[in-house]
Amino acid sequence: MDAEIIAIGSELLTPFRQDTNSLYLTDKLNQLGVEVAFKDVVGDNLQHLTQVVQTALGRADIIILMGGLGPTEDDLTREAVSATLDVPLQRDPQQLEVLKQRFAKRGLPMSDNNLKQADVIPGATVLPNRNGSAPGQWIAGSYDGRDKIIMLLPGPPHELQALFEEQCLERLQTKLPEQFIAARVLKVAMIGESQCDARIAPIYVKYPLVQTTILANAGEIQIHLRSRANSSQAAQERVDRLAEELEEELDDAIFSTQGESLEQIVGYYLQMRSATLAVAESCTGGLIGERLTSVSGSSRYFAGGALVYSNEMKTKLADVPKKLIQEHGAVSAEVAKALAEGIRKRCGATWGLAVTGIAGPGGGTPEKPVGLVYHAVSSGEKSDVVERRFVGDRERVRRWASQQALDLLRRKLM
Amino acid sequence: MDAEIIAIGSELLTPFRQDTNSLYLTDKLNQLGVEVAFKDVVGDNLQHLTQVVQTALGRADIIILMGGLGPTEDDLTREAVSATLDVPLQRDPQQLEVLKQRFAKRGLPMSDNNLKQADVIPGATVLPNRNGSAPGQWIAGSYDGRDKIIMLLPGPPHELQALFEEQCLERLQTKLPEQFIAARVLKVAMIGESQCDARIAPIYVKYPLVQTTILANAGEIQIHLRSRANSSQAAQERVDRLAEELEEELDDAIFSTQGESLEQIVGYYLQMRSATLAVAESCTGGLIGERLTSVSGSSRYFAGGALVYSNEMKTKLADVPKKLIQEHGAVSAEVAKALAEGIRKRCGATWGLAVTGIAGPGGGTPEKPVGLVYHAVSSGEKSDVVERRFVGDRERVRRWASQQALDLLRRKLM
Repeated sequence: MDAEIIAIGSELLTPFRQDTNSLYLTDKLNQLGVEVAFKDVVGDNLQHLTQVVQTALGRADIIILMGGLGPTEDDLTREAVSATLDVPLQRDPQQLEVLKQRFAKRGLPMSDNNLKQADVIPGATVLPNRNGSAPGQWIAGSYDGRDKIIMLLPGPPHELQALFEEQCLERLQTKLPEQFIAARVLKVAMIGESQCDARIAPIYVKYPLVQTTILANAGEIQIHLRSRANSSQAAQERVDRLAEELEEELDDAIFSTQGESLEQIVGYYLQMRSATLAVAESCTGGLIGERLTSVSGSSRYFAGGALVYSNEMKTKLADVPKKLIQEHGAVSAEVAKALAEGIRKRCGATWGLAVTGIAGPGGGTPEKPVGLVYHAVSSGEKSDVVERRFVGDRERVRRWASQQALDLLRRKLM
Repeated sequence: MDAEIIAIGSELLTPFRQDTNSLYLTDKLNQLGVEVAFKDVVGDNLQHLTQVVQTALGRADIIILMGGLGPTEDDLTREAVSATLDVPLQRDPQQLEVLKQRFAKRGLPMSDNNLKQADVIPGATVLPNRNGSAPGQWIAGSYDGRDKIIMLLPGPPHELQALFEEQCLERLQTKLPEQFIAARVLKVAMIGESQCDARIAPIYVKYPLVQTTILANAGEIQIHLRSRANSSQAAQERVDRLAEELEEELDDAIFSTQGESLEQIVGYYLQMRSATLAVAESCTGGLIGERLTSVSGSSRYFAGGALVYSNEMKTKLADVPKKLIQEHGAVSAEVAKALAEGIRKRCGATWGLAVTGIAGPGGGTPEKPVGLVYHAVSSGEKSDVVERRFVGDRERVRRWASQQALDLLRRKLM
């Protein structure tokens, strides 16, 4: 069964807004074994919208419309489906009552406009929306001799997601042939995309029944595996077998096999060892701290640290000897090590992690070009340093550097 | 003239990848006075793709296809356009030569697959691609008695953008009626979306010829204004007049009128005053530092600071008296002030900025609920503190808090 997802709203045709609901829905549909064949974005224009619905009805089995269910003149989704199916909308007395109560409860007057939110396609099931005034609709019927499912869902993501999960998923499942989907995500740090693919392609091509998708970001590659079979066990086994082979090949470059982020994984390791961490950040300017503290509960292992953007601060806040900076420069292996050990001591933490580099676009020299970054980790007895030359703009260099620093710590904690 | 943008590639129909080229193209098209009426995403499937091109040809004046121009079997854009227009592809000898040279230069063998990248729609102008092997194509013709423009562009953003800017913009302009577009962006801090709209709607409704778009983020609202007229001056005047009225109404809530970010504006003010800044971050964990240092050249005014995630660090790194924390709690106006002044002195900066709060989801109490954040700024003589109760998840609370802190500093610097 193929699905078509239609996002409705003129704001989605500006340079500023983008439909993101379709990513959520695609994930849910894929889990049920349904592939998305088409996605469309169309404005608040009855003629355009009707045309898009008509086209979708001709080529997809499941049609999901998102948005255009509000009370304003611009909200035309109900009207477009009614026109396409050639059945007039009916005002639903029960839904009208729900709306009236909703407004009364809030002490708000209900305008005539709002009445249209009680308009229903004959035969549709009304899907109550507990997060908003626009109810959804579920239509299952035969058109031109083929079974079709049409869903009208509200546009705001939290309304759409709650409604879809609570009222559409099960309904949809009963309409689908029984099948089982298994999925896994492996995350890999600090390998280039082409290098990673060269290593794993010979493996995953042997598994044509597992769909392998590779996504690359600065310093992180995600390998998504998905397979469907007629038993849950068969699907899972297939995915697990491939995952195992990939883990063998990539070994400790893989940092997560259950979807966790690198900052979560580092946090797990620190907690497991009852260890604490302090950071000293120069070119990343707070990004490593921000990532670590984005994890709820990180106060159990993250002590704090210093943003040592200037040379003076490296000395003042992390006790790097002035002379060391004069001798080697602020961007050097020596200063990175001194920062890691200095901040560790200063904060009384088990581990110290530090980054110093040139994020660009200015500040580079022939010996120390933009993108040169030193990453150091210290546990008191011993410190390690990694030199890297990253390519890309300021944001990308900083992102890579934060990733390298966290991965360096992960490897020491493993 | 209406445009339709078609993104091609099965990976764009997964939950992991999204077309972003269309945002770039929409911006460029709007600047020429062209509106985007439809956007589609379709997979690497000849039948689907041909159908989508056919539909587009029936309803849009300008059709832009992105992707599917590579050498693999999955690359079917040329074939789909050829099928829709009912003209066979022709292998272009000149383009073949370009391809051969490209491969020879790199010392790579050219496989038979690559030959198809020299296939051209008869009558099309070949658009050389200096960033990749897939050239684009420009087709201008009359179909069913209406003038149409069809562009075939490569999918990778840097290839598409260079090619569009260098080879399509001017060609397109000559096909369009002469008109002029003016645009402005006003950015507003720390006002709610509905509150902002209530204040400005009575103003912008008086300007029906200016298109006003309001975008809201955590702590930031962007007001985009756009107008077209038959002289550049007329368009600019219209936009400027509305901008002036909005500036009068929103006054110093507007922090930027030329597109600058809040961290850039704070940086400008600091530089103008030859002042420096130090930060002490508790619940934001580095986010404020990260934002400030995302601006290239920020070392001129950003000294550094401390991540004071634990009570101990607040004392150790920012000299907050232990007693003060015991008396008032770490999340309090008193501690926020002490942090701002402590870090200012410690770093020898002109200004100190601090945040302490409860980002959640854990850690809240009836007196100090999740979302409670204190923001303080200190210049030595005087310190100011702002208490806020933010709503939303951890990420949102942290984002709001960083925005409030930067805006507090901005207002002091103004």
